[in-house]
Amino acid sequence: MIVRDQPSSLTLFFVMQGSVVPRIFARMVGVALLSVLVLLVDHHITPLPQISIAAMSIFGIALSLFLGFRNNAAYDRWWEARKLWGAMIADIRSLGRHGSIFLANGPSRARILALAVAFAHLHRGFLRGVDVKPALRDWLDEAESEALIANRNAADAALRQIADELADLTAQEKISGYGQMTFARTLAALAEAQAGCERIMTTPLPFVYSLLVRRTTYLYCWLLPFALIEATGWFAPLLSAIVAYVFFGLQAVTNELELPFRNVQNGLPLDAMCRVIEISVCEALDRTPPPALLPENHVLT
Amino acid sequence: MIVRDQPSSLTLFFVMQGSVVPRIFARMVGVALLSVLVLLVDHHITPLPQISIAAMSIFGIALSLFLGFRNNAAYDRWWEARKLWGAMIADIRSLGRHGSIFLANGPSRARILALAVAFAHLHRGFLRGVDVKPALRDWLDEAESEALIANRNAADAALRQIADELADLTAQEKISGYGQMTFARTLAALAEAQAGCERIMTTPLPFVYSLLVRRTTYLYCWLLPFALIEATGWFAPLLSAIVAYVFFGLQAVTNELELPFRNVQNGLPLDAMCRVIEISVCEALDRTPPPALLPENHVLT
Amino acid sequence: MIVRDQPSSLTLFFVMQGSVVPRIFARMVGVALLSVLVLLVDHHITPLPQISIAAMSIFGIALSLFLGFRNNAAYDRWWEARKLWGAMIADIRSLGRHGSIFLANGPSRARILALAVAFAHLHRGFLRGVDVKPALRDWLDEAESEALIANRNAADAALRQIADELADLTAQEKISGYGQMTFARTLAALAEAQAGCERIMTTPLPFVYSLLVRRTTYLYCWLLPFALIEATGWFAPLLSAIVAYVFFGLQAVTNELELPFRNVQNGLPLDAMCRVIEISVCEALDRTPPPALLPENHVLT
Amino acid sequence: MIVRDQPSSLTLFFVMQGSVVPRIFARMVGVALLSVLVLLVDHHITPLPQISIAAMSIFGIALSLFLGFRNNAAYDRWWEARKLWGAMIADIRSLGRHGSIFLANGPSRARILALAVAFAHLHRGFLRGVDVKPALRDWLDEAESEALIANRNAADAALRQIADELADLTAQEKISGYGQMTFARTLAALAEAQAGCERIMTTPLPFVYSLLVRRTTYLYCWLLPFALIEATGWFAPLLSAIVAYVFFGLQAVTNELELPFRNVQNGLPLDAMCRVIEISVCEALDRTPPPALLPENHVLT
Amino acid sequence: MIVRDQPSSLTLFFVMQGSVVPRIFARMVGVALLSVLVLLVDHHITPLPQISIAAMSIFGIALSLFLGFRNNAAYDRWWEARKLWGAMIADIRSLGRHGSIFLANGPSRARILALAVAFAHLHRGFLRGVDVKPALRDWLDEAESEALIANRNAADAALRQIADELADLTAQEKISGYGQMTFARTLAALAEAQAGCERIMTTPLPFVYSLLVRRTTYLYCWLLPFALIEATGWFAPLLSAIVAYVFFGLQAVTNELELPFRNVQNGLPLDAMCRVIEISVCEALDRTPPPALLPENHVLT
Repeated sequence: MIVRDQPSSLTLFFVMQGSVVPRIFARMVGVALLSVLVLLVDHHITPLPQISIAAMSIFGIALSLFLGFRNNAAYDRWWEARKLWGAMIADIRSLGRHGSIFLANGPSRARILALAVAFAHLHRGFLRGVDVKPALRDWLDEAESEALIANRNAADAALRQIADELADLTAQEKISGYGQMTFARTLAALAEAQAGCERIMTTPLPFVYSLLVRRTTYLYCWLLPFALIEATGWFAPLLSAIVAYVFFGLQAVTNELELPFRNVQNGLPLDAMCRVIEISVCEALDRTPPPALLPENHVLT
Repeated sequence: MIVRDQPSSLTLFFVMQGSVVPRIFARMVGVALLSVLVLLVDHHITPLPQISIAAMSIFGIALSLFLGFRNNAAYDRWWEARKLWGAMIADIRSLGRHGSIFLANGPSRARILALAVAFAHLHRGFLRGVDVKPALRDWLDEAESEALIANRNAADAALRQIADELADLTAQEKISGYGQMTFARTLAALAEAQAGCERIMTTPLPFVYSLLVRRTTYLYCWLLPFALIEATGWFAPLLSAIVAYVFFGLQAVTNELELPFRNVQNGLPLDAMCRVIEISVCEALDRTPPPALLPENHVLT
Repeated sequence: MIVRDQPSSLTLFFVMQGSVVPRIFARMVGVALLSVLVLLVDHHITPLPQISIAAMSIFGIALSLFLGFRNNAAYDRWWEARKLWGAMIADIRSLGRHGSIFLANGPSRARILALAVAFAHLHRGFLRGVDVKPALRDWLDEAESEALIANRNAADAALRQIADELADLTAQEKISGYGQMTFARTLAALAEAQAGCERIMTTPLPFVYSLLVRRTTYLYCWLLPFALIEATGWFAPLLSAIVAYVFFGLQAVTNELELPFRNVQNGLPLDAMCRVIEISVCEALDRTPPPALLPENHVLT
Repeated sequence: MIVRDQPSSLTLFFVMQGSVVPRIFARMVGVALLSVLVLLVDHHITPLPQISIAAMSIFGIALSLFLGFRNNAAYDRWWEARKLWGAMIADIRSLGRHGSIFLANGPSRARILALAVAFAHLHRGFLRGVDVKPALRDWLDEAESEALIANRNAADAALRQIADELADLTAQEKISGYGQMTFARTLAALAEAQAGCERIMTTPLPFVYSLLVRRTTYLYCWLLPFALIEATGWFAPLLSAIVAYVFFGLQAVTNELELPFRNVQNGLPLDAMCRVIEISVCEALDRTPPPALLPENHVLT
Repeated sequence: MIVRDQPSSLTLFFVMQGSVVPRIFARMVGVALLSVLVLLVDHHITPLPQISIAAMSIFGIALSLFLGFRNNAAYDRWWEARKLWGAMIADIRSLGRHGSIFLANGPSRARILALAVAFAHLHRGFLRGVDVKPALRDWLDEAESEALIANRNAADAALRQIADELADLTAQEKISGYGQMTFARTLAALAEAQAGCERIMTTPLPFVYSLLVRRTTYLYCWLLPFALIEATGWFAPLLSAIVAYVFFGLQAVTNELELPFRNVQNGLPLDAMCRVIEISVCEALDRTPPPALLPENHVLT
């Protein structure tokens, strides 16, 4: 996630970070060159068939609507993913309070909170496809970390481990039925948030949308120069490039937000959010919390 | 569900899988041919009455809005269906944890989880209209499977069976009131997700929308060639075909997403999600989980 | 609710069922005739003042947005109503499971489920304004049916009756506090769904929208012929009729979906959903369930 | 809230009730007169600078989008407000059932329900800024009414009174912990609905939107006549007036829906909903319910 | 938050408060001057290349859609933030009622409510980046205030303090398991609202949108004068300025609503809402409540 102030008007056009320009520059130039070519041929060689700008306008409105739909859907996924992580942060903090209320701040509370942190890291590992064993070191011993990671769904295994801890407490009559229920409900909430993230990761937007929208965008940008011959004269290459910037740019943004867990510039800062959880848990356990993660070069991972 | 990377620009136009082109190709060609015919008649035989492109533009905006509405509604159904299945996955995992906390990992826990897997399969069977008896073999004995399937609402019967199991535990005083409540609530959540899926399957978008939108699309595409005569010249057949692609294509996508449980290319991967449930349950029961289902030829069923 | 497959291209234009054409045919013809008249006067008698098609285009976009808004709002009401009924179906099934878990499948369970079915029918009776006494015959004795129906809010009275049943069980110490809570919560959920349906029925879309949108639609369709004189020539009557079809048609759809409980072609199938509830309850009580309601002439009531 | 059937086509243009025309008539006439003036000056005195209709079209689309946004936001507030009141109705009914289940239909139940009715009236009093003391007379004695009303947040005080009643029952061991929890949860739901209504009342749409949208609407309507000179000729005054009707009219609607609790024609019928609550509570207490409020001159307050 | 009545038509154009005009005035004038320059050069020096207004129209629709999307997203954030604070107000009131029901209005109730007020202030301090120690003086003693503020997440620490209070009550057997559960749930709700606010504050809209939209707005406004040369003549500077007002203005609004907790004119009135909480808590504790915060110069902070 990029964290920076809005650039001033002056620097606005030179900010490259977080910009999609580098990725779509070739296409922008391509469309501009096509536009120049069309103009040259039309003026110096032979009049080309022209498309009325009004016809392109119908096409453009339809394209705007489709791009707009896909953009909305992708942004909703990104924001829902952030909401689910926010809910997980709140739920893990609640586990700490439950531990105070129902377990009298005993050792089981620390163990449950450590497993909850492990859950967050393991979930992040799944979503990002990274190895989180180093991150678990502060919370679980080596053997237990490895046992958890060996599971197909390691994050779910961490939640089961908490449940087993609660089962032990039950067997030892160290937890009341009220405590059981309260913990069970919070674990269920964590499981739901986890399943929500899995859903977003494993179920991309229907492939057919990508095809439909991307093909249409290409066709539109390639036909546009023929419509701009008369409508804009030598402004045509500039306008073509701008339209390509808007449409290809929006598409590139959409692609990044659609799968919000990847470690890309506009992805969600899973590392930083896991650290927020660690800080909260450390404070709940009266330990010195680690420092918050800071953006490096304006990017929070 | 189609699972594949975004094709590169080069191959974009040749990907047929997941594309709607095959299904609407005839209509695209038809509109293009009509356009050629109109041009030929207009140029060589007799000037045809023309429709100003601006008039078509009003029509086109209205059509875009209606198609956009229907597309949004269909996508919402598809995504809600996926959310409901995601909630079911989380709830079944929660049943496992509840079993640890309230049933001390006893044999009833295994039985309840097996019935939960059966619930998922039976629900899938209802939504897809397929026979799921083979899938139940690993979880229930033959007689019980058949007894469940004999019900009008077999998935609901599986949930009732879990309730009966809990009633037995109650009679034997092997479960506390807290456990009863916690299980009852999770079962209610499963029942709600199930009823949600039934709602999406049995209540399509109002039929009148289909009529309104489809008729309008046809009229639009048939009138368009008359509007393009002057506006685009010999680009007309190409533009007609593209517009037909966009509008008929969006309609075809909508039709597939509207009923998201069918075994079509853009449908939801119910088989794979049932397998995810089986894996989670196996891990919860310390059994070796079956392999995850992989996409065959980019399609996950 | 109309239940039928998408008609093929050929028959698409001849399907009258579920179509709004019959209801708006007069208006379509009226606009077309006005268009013919305008053309005749303009060509043969005296040139009429013309409205540029671009001016109508601004107007048309605004109208599309307002119609689109009203359509979205009406569809949301329709779909929310369906969701509420789906939730009621799930909740009544849950009552059955609660009865197994907390009442040991005793006679009170059957009584509670019968009252729940009565609740659904009585609620349907209120929403549709029909007499549901015959439908209660299978579930309650005559006197009790009549006592319930005598209430101003008969469905709420049925829920109260369930609460009284639970109060009796409490007095006889046949239900635990856990059971009380679980039932109380599910009854509250039923009450919320009921109040939601009452809300949709008694609170239509603000009347002022209807006025604004309907007046604007008429003005638009009456002015359109003047704008089409030059823009489309003798296509004008056809185009006028199509535009009238789209705008008046959407309005007619909206009117039907806005109040989704009425027994109209695009209304919700309350009868069929009550039957679904009866089937589920019969299965929960090990009785032979009645047959599902089937669409008659493609219409499910 | 206006309650009346859709007017037929004939009477549609003469319905003044619920119409925004009276409020915006001056502005409509103003724009029409400006249009006449512009035409006269342009034809008889000196050609005026003209604005191409296409330029106005860009402007008009932007304006439509902004008006549409504000309209959506205002409608959402109105509908959310209605949902919150619907939830309150359901919750108060639930209090009655809880009283049966957990308080054995004892006198405390009647007292709690009376306080709940008082809560609804006091909340209405706050939202409407009216004195509700007469409405409380049937439910509480004079002294208690006055004590409640003396609070800064009288509705909240009524809920606290219910909590105190429950505290008394607890002290007398007349209510179980299950009952405490169930009541506490329903009271929390009522408090949430109340806070939701307070939110809608005290937090209008950001003021800056009103400025932006209203200014833009005025500028648009004042510039429009210059654009219509050539585009529509002597239709210009009519078209200007219609456009003013659409844009100013939508704005007037939005203003009314934005603050849905005021006693205006399109406001929510708080009096009638309080009466619905009274009826439900009377039926729950076996008292004769008062008659439902009926619309007077099509308006339900 | 600005609290004032809608200005009348006359004063509408002279209200500067809450208006975005001061901030974007330079840009509006810049665009108008560019427009004058373009006209002068075109008329007196050399004809400039022109852009057809239709081409700008396509561009304008796309821009409207993107601005509309960003505006919707920002408004949703603002409104969700307000909802979360509304939920916190309701939850804190509920803590008071829970205290009556489960703690018999004892001293712990007052302590818990004081900590809840502290929670609200500390949360506000975090969101606004202000020192809230003075505000805590009425509720906690100096040492405790400082201890809380010393935490990295001070608001969370206040909730933990409440949990510790409940743990003490549990140790002294002064609270039942039902009370524990009820309090634990309400605390969890507060934690969720808190995490929601943190989410909104720390996760701005993706930076790439700002770049895309802002760049496009600038390009649009700079190109517009070339399109208006012929389309509007000497109206061009006025129209350019209006378009700049609409597009830059909407952007400025969006920037303010996107981060709704800052102490800006259109930000949320956190101070006033904390005061609402204090009033409710004082009334719950039978203390004299402080006066409500009133808008100063129409602004509520």
